Amino acid sequence: MNSYTAKITITLRSSILDVQGKTVEHALHSLHMPQLTNVRIGKYVEMHVQAPDSATALDVATTACRKLIANPVMEDFVIEIAAAEGQLA
Amino acid sequence: MNSYTAKITITLRSSILDVQGKTVEHALHSLHMPQLTNVRIGKYVEMHVQAPDSATALDVATTACRKLIANPVMEDFVIEIAAAEGQLA
Repeated sequence: MNSYTAKITITLRSSILDVQGKTVEHALHSLHMPQLTNVRIGKYVEMHVQAPDSATALDVATTACRKLIANPVMEDFVIEIAAAEGQLA
Repeated sequence: MNSYTAKITITLRSSILDVQGKTVEHALHSLHMPQLTNVRIGKYVEMHVQAPDSATALDVATTACRKLIANPVMEDFVIEIAAAEGQLA
């Protein structure tokens, strides 16, 4: 068994209005940063995965996203698997 | 002026207890995924930046993080600047 780190980025689908992002955008404009637009806010999840290889680690992380972490109707997710620090893949 | 995309990952500092992450970890273990551990949950923010060059875009995004988006006491942030889609840097 090897140890991997899964880095998961979860974003709202682009067709869905991001109310939190709009609010942050307005606040940034009030702080004199009008050059910042299209703010969209998502989630970032990092976890350790014990798996025999990186393909299995990706499978487990994908299952976790589908079953619990992401909302498959409203959100998209991208998973990046890396060898845990101080260890070779 | 060019258009850049800033991708910002905000994570809780490792010394700070991540209660949300612990809760998700317990839930994953209840879903028969004990190979997932050390779950930590952060934020992901994406925004468009209008700037003459990528160094200025990074400066503006860093200021936005310091002033509004991240909590500098409890959180770390990493900013990645990319040319906006369909445009060269």
